[in-house]
Amino acid sequence: MRDLYHDELDAIGNSLVAMTHLAGTAMDRATNALLDGDLNGAERVVSDDTAIDALRADLEARTFALMSLQQPVATDLRVLVTTLHLVADLERMGDLALHVAKVARMRYPDIAVPPELRDVVSQMGQVALSLVDKVAEVIKGRDIELAAAIEAEDDSMDALHRKLFTLLLSPNWTHGTESAIDLALLGRYYERYADHAVGVARRIVFIATGEMQAGSAATGKPNGP
Amino acid sequence: MRDLYHDELDAIGNSLVAMTHLAGTAMDRATNALLDGDLNGAERVVSDDTAIDALRADLEARTFALMSLQQPVATDLRVLVTTLHLVADLERMGDLALHVAKVARMRYPDIAVPPELRDVVSQMGQVALSLVDKVAEVIKGRDIELAAAIEAEDDSMDALHRKLFTLLLSPNWTHGTESAIDLALLGRYYERYADHAVGVARRIVFIATGEMQAGSAATGKPNGP
Repeated sequence: MRDLYHDELDAIGNSLVAMTHLAGTAMDRATNALLDGDLNGAERVVSDDTAIDALRADLEARTFALMSLQQPVATDLRVLVTTLHLVADLERMGDLALHVAKVARMRYPDIAVPPELRDVVSQMGQVALSLVDKVAEVIKGRDIELAAAIEAEDDSMDALHRKLFTLLLSPNWTHGTESAIDLALLGRYYERYADHAVGVARRIVFIATGEMQAGSAATGKPNGP
Repeated sequence: MRDLYHDELDAIGNSLVAMTHLAGTAMDRATNALLDGDLNGAERVVSDDTAIDALRADLEARTFALMSLQQPVATDLRVLVTTLHLVADLERMGDLALHVAKVARMRYPDIAVPPELRDVVSQMGQVALSLVDKVAEVIKGRDIELAAAIEAEDDSMDALHRKLFTLLLSPNWTHGTESAIDLALLGRYYERYADHAVGVARRIVFIATGEMQAGSAATGKPNGP
């Protein structure tokens, strides 16, 4: 028979998956708002971010309550400590989507992304979405194989980030300094989003295997530029 | 008589203060390396970052061990949970100093900061250092008054960040796209560094008062551009 403790642990897991999907939807909407100059879409990401923040506060409180009431040890405690790290990463992913949406809003009615950069930005948005879908699956099932695929997608994001910078620094760049700065910051938001996704996956692998991967993805260390 | 539990809690607190000073020294050296085009200084920040990372791993392990062995509740548990958040913020501050150092290294033997931006970047470095000194004091003594001063310094950092962007986007900007992107990203590193410092202070105020401040500084939400 299941006990209340494990029921609540499952419920927390479900909320983590829900939070992951919210962070994914936010970045998907932010990317579309950015590429289409869609003010309403951007505003929606901004207003929906409060739900992600509220979910973080709720999950932190519930995790703390379980720690306090149940005094878990070993793997159970590790799962709860990891949950605290995961909600921090997921909230930050929501914030990065928010930053993307704010660039779209700031440039409205113009479109922040020049035509020759649409492809690379669109691909960064697709990789972000694919990453977050995989992260949700990893949280559901602690699937270590999928965690490896997440690392590979993070490499794709880094490659897109480098490509973006190559285009920005090309002698053919005609869109001025402000636009270049917008795009450089946007590139960083997507890259950091991917780093946090990898961080989430690594934390879960750590619970499953007891071994932390080399490097801490959410610190963004291996990545340039 | 003190028990082993509280001795270890004190030792963890001392390590947190040490980690704060390492994050401060890193940003101070990174700023100097950036302004002086000092390759050795930049390299030192890069190599010293492993010590900050190691301290995070050590502090996480010790905090987890205390949770597991002592099964604390209420304020004691909150202090340990908060410690996990603080080490994450402090490690990230070290990473942001590392990013600053890497810009200095990437542009060597040139100096990444054009003459007319030296003042504002130098001031950002000074505010960062002042912030981190106050954060160390707050960690030592849980001084809520000092936490308010930290919020005020974060406002100064935001003002400097806006000033930097005004200079970058001035029609008089003659240093090209690459330099503008460097400076925009540098501005973001300093601003995020300050956000994490505020996040640390807010977490400690929360322990002392049980009330979380409005907004979560480390999420960087209130700040533009």
